[in-house]
Amino acid sequence: MAEEVKLFRTWSSPYALRIVWALKLKGIEFETIFEDITNKSPLLLQHNPAHAKVPVLLHNGKPVCESLIILEYIDETWTHNPPLLPQDPLEKASSRFWAHFGDHKLMESIWNVFTSQGKEQEEAMATSIENLKLIDEQLKGKKFFNGNAIGYLDLALGWMANLISILEEIISVELIHTDKFPHLSSWIQNFSDDPVIIECWPPRDKMVTKFQIMRDNYLTRSICQVKPA
Amino acid sequence: MAEEVKLFRTWSSPYALRIVWALKLKGIEFETIFEDITNKSPLLLQHNPAHAKVPVLLHNGKPVCESLIILEYIDETWTHNPPLLPQDPLEKASSRFWAHFGDHKLMESIWNVFTSQGKEQEEAMATSIENLKLIDEQLKGKKFFNGNAIGYLDLALGWMANLISILEEIISVELIHTDKFPHLSSWIQNFSDDPVIIECWPPRDKMVTKFQIMRDNYLTRSICQVKPA
Repeated sequence: MAEEVKLFRTWSSPYALRIVWALKLKGIEFETIFEDITNKSPLLLQHNPAHAKVPVLLHNGKPVCESLIILEYIDETWTHNPPLLPQDPLEKASSRFWAHFGDHKLMESIWNVFTSQGKEQEEAMATSIENLKLIDEQLKGKKFFNGNAIGYLDLALGWMANLISILEEIISVELIHTDKFPHLSSWIQNFSDDPVIIECWPPRDKMVTKFQIMRDNYLTRSICQVKPA
Repeated sequence: MAEEVKLFRTWSSPYALRIVWALKLKGIEFETIFEDITNKSPLLLQHNPAHAKVPVLLHNGKPVCESLIILEYIDETWTHNPPLLPQDPLEKASSRFWAHFGDHKLMESIWNVFTSQGKEQEEAMATSIENLKLIDEQLKGKKFFNGNAIGYLDLALGWMANLISILEEIISVELIHTDKFPHLSSWIQNFSDDPVIIECWPPRDKMVTKFQIMRDNYLTRSICQVKPA
């Protein structure tokens, strides 16, 4: 039986992009179904009733949800090269730990910088810098997180290589100075140089417009909370 | 070399309890280091600088953090019986998905019931019930989540078997009706009947006192926000 691989994604989701990259790196043919998150399809709701979110990978009719879980599924299902996760349990635990850290502490702190201003933004900057330092340390002496090839943790943290510079552009703040984060800066370059990675980035101008609107909405809401009409 | 296995935990953490159970089920000898979360030890901060949280598993001097990641590490390191995760990639992805769902959507919705009152509590109850229904469906026709033996997802959701009834007692609300959640109710019974599980529960009276204080603090803070002094 021919394999059926379908990916439900949106054009902009950094979580879904992880799966696009992983499938392309593994050389898996797949069909893409673009979702509109303001008008989700009945199929998406059927395949991910608990969250109704992208990405969803549909493999021979069976859904797999949550991007980090899908990455592991891809690596365990199509075991040929390149491997995504390291084999050693300790290195594997470390990759999972930093992926989790990226999705929670790091993303939250950077998001707080992006959706605030003044003193609140300064505090969020300090937290983001602490978090980025921890990531920078993981990359000392390495091209990618697990050596010389792109793997699970590179894909999990891949959003940093594109999204941070978009957010920086919108708020005119520099988060990742090359001097402050030399290893992270080199990694961003190495990661972005890979043709599989670069061909999948969403259009930058559309991303800037989308995130500019999001920031404006956040700031309007936050002003309304302080000074109700 | 004799293996050195140390577990940093607190007496009450449901996350740390997952690791105690897993090590005991696998028959791994370990030393417990009890932490006071109001006065964390320098060792805990050294081993988990990113979060400074328990549990931390120290295996031959190497730290592994985050309870769900530690469970996978234990299963990959001590591969003898009982296995914790299923072998099939799809079943494994499903276990990871529901563990993640438990730690985020389910726990948050139940916590919102516990730390609110009135209309807000009613809304949180409705969300919790929807989430619990999804868990109940996973248990149809099964003794445990992956068949006849306790595994990863049982340990990940093990807090439900004890903590929910403690929260219910404090707020005098019944979340898990046997009629409404027949499979979940049976699972709670099956899980709690296991001697390894039951011997590790923290003392119920201390838990009630601890969580009663937490709820009081939440409600006081929430009243202060509405009516500042």
